[in-house]
Amino acid sequence: MLEYKPNTVLSNEEFDTVGTNPIRHDGADKVTGRAKYGADTILPGMLYGKILRSPHAHAVIKSVDISAAAAHPGVHAVVTSADWPETSMKLVDLAEGSIHNLGFLSMNVLARGKALYKGHAIAAVAAVSVHVAEEATKLIKVEYEVLKPVLTAIEGMKPDAPILHERLASVASPALRPGGLLDDNADSMRTNIANEFEFNLGDVEQGFKDADVIVEKTTTTQAVHQGYIEPQAGVAQWSEDGKLTIFSSSQGQFTVRDHTARFLGIAVGQVKAVPMEIGGGFGAKGITYVEPIAALLSQKSGRPVKVQLSRTEVFEGTGPTSGTQISVKLGATKDGKLIAAEAELIYEAGAFPGSPVGAGIQCMMGQYDIPNGHLKAIDVVVNRPKSAAYRAPGAPSSAFCMETAMDELAEKLGIDPLEFRLMNIASEGVRRVTGPMTPLVGYTETLQAVKDHQHYNTKLEGKKRGRGIATGWWANNSGPASAVLVVNSDGTVSLTEGSPDIGGSRAAMAMHVAEVLGLPVTDIKPQVGDTDSIGFTSNTGGSSVTFKTGWACYNAAQSVKQQMIERAAKIWEIPDADVEYKEAVLQHISDPELKLNFKQIAARMVPTGGPIVASAGVNPPGPGPSIGVHLVDVEVDTETGKVEILRYTAAQDAGKAIHPAYVEGQIQGGAVQGIGWALNEAYIYNDDGALLNSSFLDYRMPTSLDLPMIDTIIVEVANPAHPYGVRGVGEVPIVPPMAAISNAIYDAIGIRMNDLPMSPDKILEALWAQEGK
Amino acid sequence: MLEYKPNTVLSNEEFDTVGTNPIRHDGADKVTGRAKYGADTILPGMLYGKILRSPHAHAVIKSVDISAAAAHPGVHAVVTSADWPETSMKLVDLAEGSIHNLGFLSMNVLARGKALYKGHAIAAVAAVSVHVAEEATKLIKVEYEVLKPVLTAIEGMKPDAPILHERLASVASPALRPGGLLDDNADSMRTNIANEFEFNLGDVEQGFKDADVIVEKTTTTQAVHQGYIEPQAGVAQWSEDGKLTIFSSSQGQFTVRDHTARFLGIAVGQVKAVPMEIGGGFGAKGITYVEPIAALLSQKSGRPVKVQLSRTEVFEGTGPTSGTQISVKLGATKDGKLIAAEAELIYEAGAFPGSPVGAGIQCMMGQYDIPNGHLKAIDVVVNRPKSAAYRAPGAPSSAFCMETAMDELAEKLGIDPLEFRLMNIASEGVRRVTGPMTPLVGYTETLQAVKDHQHYNTKLEGKKRGRGIATGWWANNSGPASAVLVVNSDGTVSLTEGSPDIGGSRAAMAMHVAEVLGLPVTDIKPQVGDTDSIGFTSNTGGSSVTFKTGWACYNAAQSVKQQMIERAAKIWEIPDADVEYKEAVLQHISDPELKLNFKQIAARMVPTGGPIVASAGVNPPGPGPSIGVHLVDVEVDTETGKVEILRYTAAQDAGKAIHPAYVEGQIQGGAVQGIGWALNEAYIYNDDGALLNSSFLDYRMPTSLDLPMIDTIIVEVANPAHPYGVRGVGEVPIVPPMAAISNAIYDAIGIRMNDLPMSPDKILEALWAQEGK
Repeated sequence: MLEYKPNTVLSNEEFDTVGTNPIRHDGADKVTGRAKYGADTILPGMLYGKILRSPHAHAVIKSVDISAAAAHPGVHAVVTSADWPETSMKLVDLAEGSIHNLGFLSMNVLARGKALYKGHAIAAVAAVSVHVAEEATKLIKVEYEVLKPVLTAIEGMKPDAPILHERLASVASPALRPGGLLDDNADSMRTNIANEFEFNLGDVEQGFKDADVIVEKTTTTQAVHQGYIEPQAGVAQWSEDGKLTIFSSSQGQFTVRDHTARFLGIAVGQVKAVPMEIGGGFGAKGITYVEPIAALLSQKSGRPVKVQLSRTEVFEGTGPTSGTQISVKLGATKDGKLIAAEAELIYEAGAFPGSPVGAGIQCMMGQYDIPNGHLKAIDVVVNRPKSAAYRAPGAPSSAFCMETAMDELAEKLGIDPLEFRLMNIASEGVRRVTGPMTPLVGYTETLQAVKDHQHYNTKLEGKKRGRGIATGWWANNSGPASAVLVVNSDGTVSLTEGSPDIGGSRAAMAMHVAEVLGLPVTDIKPQVGDTDSIGFTSNTGGSSVTFKTGWACYNAAQSVKQQMIERAAKIWEIPDADVEYKEAVLQHISDPELKLNFKQIAARMVPTGGPIVASAGVNPPGPGPSIGVHLVDVEVDTETGKVEILRYTAAQDAGKAIHPAYVEGQIQGGAVQGIGWALNEAYIYNDDGALLNSSFLDYRMPTSLDLPMIDTIIVEVANPAHPYGVRGVGEVPIVPPMAAISNAIYDAIGIRMNDLPMSPDKILEALWAQEGK
Repeated sequence: MLEYKPNTVLSNEEFDTVGTNPIRHDGADKVTGRAKYGADTILPGMLYGKILRSPHAHAVIKSVDISAAAAHPGVHAVVTSADWPETSMKLVDLAEGSIHNLGFLSMNVLARGKALYKGHAIAAVAAVSVHVAEEATKLIKVEYEVLKPVLTAIEGMKPDAPILHERLASVASPALRPGGLLDDNADSMRTNIANEFEFNLGDVEQGFKDADVIVEKTTTTQAVHQGYIEPQAGVAQWSEDGKLTIFSSSQGQFTVRDHTARFLGIAVGQVKAVPMEIGGGFGAKGITYVEPIAALLSQKSGRPVKVQLSRTEVFEGTGPTSGTQISVKLGATKDGKLIAAEAELIYEAGAFPGSPVGAGIQCMMGQYDIPNGHLKAIDVVVNRPKSAAYRAPGAPSSAFCMETAMDELAEKLGIDPLEFRLMNIASEGVRRVTGPMTPLVGYTETLQAVKDHQHYNTKLEGKKRGRGIATGWWANNSGPASAVLVVNSDGTVSLTEGSPDIGGSRAAMAMHVAEVLGLPVTDIKPQVGDTDSIGFTSNTGGSSVTFKTGWACYNAAQSVKQQMIERAAKIWEIPDADVEYKEAVLQHISDPELKLNFKQIAARMVPTGGPIVASAGVNPPGPGPSIGVHLVDVEVDTETGKVEILRYTAAQDAGKAIHPAYVEGQIQGGAVQGIGWALNEAYIYNDDGALLNSSFLDYRMPTSLDLPMIDTIIVEVANPAHPYGVRGVGEVPIVPPMAAISNAIYDAIGIRMNDLPMSPDKILEALWAQEGK
């Protein structure tokens, strides 16, 4: 067993498997089309569900007449929210540490009383084919009273704004988890402000008084899509005894189970959720859309029902990340020390409370040592789809504001922007404005890695070219996780764990087991278990999986190791303590004749006591935050306004990269998504609240032709809270790109682009303004 | 925890759940058609397989031309045994304690060189529909050299008999597991005798010299079908990286995995076998037919393939139990003490070695104390489907011979047949003729229970009516087994275990968990795990499940209990030892204020350390044999030869009946199958070896209209080797019926019916012979 040396970089020499790049176990199935995704489930007698959606962005649903649809040949069930109980509007802790207002989530899945965005699900039909179901949705008669929509947070905060929720109470609260409470006892407050809270540290007023240089700025960002390829899809089968089985693609089969159970008013123990492969999620598949509807249709029809969204439904009916308006004021002394910060973050929640403004505020300046701060967050409901998580939810927007402000401040101070950040980085033990103390993280090491990199040390030549740098910070999550190991008679080991595999986590989990047992990783067979086969494991999200589920795998493997030792001791009739386990070989501590390898003992499991099975459940503390430092060179085409990414280098502290190629992939993927968000992506609405670009043709994501190779630097400052030093890596790489690119554009053309996306039209307009046109 | 008191009957007062009759967890799904059986799997792109079978009972396969079939539109693959490696003919121990000659099994699944029975699989086709596949099988050109078939063991043993296997060596061996060795080094022996072995105890010659009364007789039994409703069916999907997933109905997903892996020449770790529901097996689904063929077709076509047998294929292509000829000679002193026994058991193995003659010889007189014995077993290959296990394989035939002989002996001695058995029953510690010592079993208690029963004490009135009694003995198996438990946040517990559920074992397993944890059994959610999710568990067979898997569930539940105690101790910040667990309530041993129930701690799992998961793997010794004592009243219609069952009472030692209603169901089901075997069932072949009654219309099984209520007596003499005293119950009830009915017929009409079935035609012929017609 590895002896952990804190505050050191772990060398690959200490490991057999950790730090190598094996082929993922699910790779062949995925590239040959054999992997089964949410839509690949087929059950005997299965029906197909289709959802009727609101054509209005804001409307009272006066009546829904399903009779004609129900009578249509081939239709087996038509459901509306009247078919399930009103879910309590109290915040609930699902006993797994994740707090939600499921009442709002339920109303998002099927509208109750009001349609709050165009695309809001009103009713659903199950029929013998998807075509019949679609036909039947047109027969549902809905009487609407159309209301004026509110499409941005700023509009929504106006005193005369149309109100989405009559009884929404705005609570100023220091809670980190804005919930958007509807308090049954509160009087109506007629507001779209779902939540407002602030953080204070030190004396901000005095801080700004002491500052030699102050920068103030406001940025805006637009709602963007997570860009997953697979639309949401699932199949539900209701049994006559009230048991429900769900097959779906999600970032958490336990969330699917728990949400669906709550919406339907049944116990979680009645539901079994089977995780299918997931074709991308990036946070968006951490909540449910199709499963509860499929379940309701199955309950009513008595048949299994599949619901699969179209791409347009994905755009119009599921959640993107929030649009934001963020203002910041930073003060520094002339020697470059940040001494005061103030910020106001306004995030669009979409139709129901709960934008990621809480994470946005936490992450905005988490990496810096700022003694005086006052940060305020505001969550506003608007007539758009309820916002959903997107990779480091909330943080990219606040980092865009903060890190462009840092660039402005560095410029004013005449300090190199990288040096300026090095001067202000928080060291271990520093209190953040939002509360917690800074643990051990390789902030300095990551900045230094970029400083030492050839990219940073190569001068950028050419006209209209510029270089920008930005950092990004993300808290990283842990959570409950579970693993079961079974030793097979051929010496391979089957691993069942609870985390849906989006980014190659099967390989990383198998590597934890292989490392403990000294086996080749190809001898480990990982699979993701259903909710009846594995202990509660929180979502694949928050960059938590390799940390938390890795721990579970590590513990379960230690139990297998111990059982192998006991079997060897039994075979040799010696005490357990006389058996040594080393590199998958068991031997007597002093008698070299007594030696059996893992496979030999595996072949003798049955006569020595039966199968070897091990299990572990964990909820490990200390995932530790992560930092990313991105350096980008751009060229601006002043004729077209197009920004070309010339060179891109992203550095990040991975703690210890279990599978460096997948860490690199995460960094590259995050950077690319950030580039898209920076330059092109945005949900474009008309005044009626209709989305105008609800397809991948009109919603412009970067392709490989738009981008250079994203160069990566993996920094490894081991996380002392994980046996192999892991810290989460998946999210932070999407945080710095927008600011880095904006800073580079400024370097290229001398214009501060403060509104996303920095698309050709906006660049051109800015250039024309610069030229006084 | 229960404190076991050996040699006592466990009272239900000691239990909360054990001994009650909850509804099975899978009941609603099964009666409403929602349960998924082997044929219910549908995968995207799935093809349908169909098998070409030999029209000849004995033929050399000179050539197989698949070209026309392969070229047929819609056909994706055609396979023969040339497509897989020759499986080694060595006996192999699959590391799970079950020894097979997989070479023969492989050749049974797909013929190699010779077709050895009509219906022997020659080739298989995968096509876009089952109709296209069937059409294409007709395009396969097979050139046969037809040979004379051998259809019975007696024929097959003749020196001039046609020889099935040129290199079969007959080995006289005391092995309990006749394997039918083909020894590569042995010279050809040109024999159909696959195995011959004997057991000796004491001095038989002297025993017969000392006997005052001797009975000698010979009986014959015919091959009979297990009568399961669901034909074999399965789906295989081969992945490009060599991984194979199988969904099928079987009595053992691990056997499916291991056999298929061996036949295909891949490691077991490459295969995942998923157990679907099983529509009856009774032993027959403990080996594979369709899965390896589906796998081979999938490998060749690159698509998932389903193979599902028709009823005719089940009859012609899968194994029934063996036909037998058994002779016995018994000697007793005039005071009723058995002192010598001699027997020769000849069993038809079918086309490949391995009849259940080994079990037949073990069980023939296992319940009796006979100081001198000589028993001989002979296993003979014939041109019929390879015999397969059928409920207490081998024992009903030998019991038919033994227990009718016991009746004759009792008559000669003038002793009541039940009393005669009581006088000769083996007590604990007595050595059996076949070896092992007699453990503690309720032999006497079960006989006594019948003696005390109202049926036994009611005089049978009426003409041509008779009463018969017989006992039956079965060794019962144990084996490796495994269970995983997961505590859900609502306080329910999910159980994954490795034993396919044929007779309600999900309920019995859940009851073990419920009993340990003091939870209602409805709070336990049992499921049967696939081979990657659960430790190796040997087949659902040998009446082993409630014993072995019950043990695994018991151990896993003890681990959950311990973890719950640790969580309570953590919450209260007290030592574990100060927490008491009683009836699902945890409390401080002395402070009554500190009290939390199971559900409350379940709801607090995540913050107290994460999910609670527990696992257990066992291979428990001491399943202990079982005894059944059946009493039957019959009436013979001397005009038609029909035998009517007037009354039937079956008593059995269950050790402890976990779920008495299911124990009763097992006893009733076994008795009914025995009645069918006794009176009607038989495979009828013509001289060419063609089965003439390959449908349930022509193969006459008893229906509910043919039978009275089968009355049961559950005797409970606790098995000291199981925490709740369980011994297996599923098989022994099929052992006594044939002898009991034959004895009753003798009592009714004075004719000893020594050949099964005792069908109307045979009864009439016997009556005519009696009358000298």
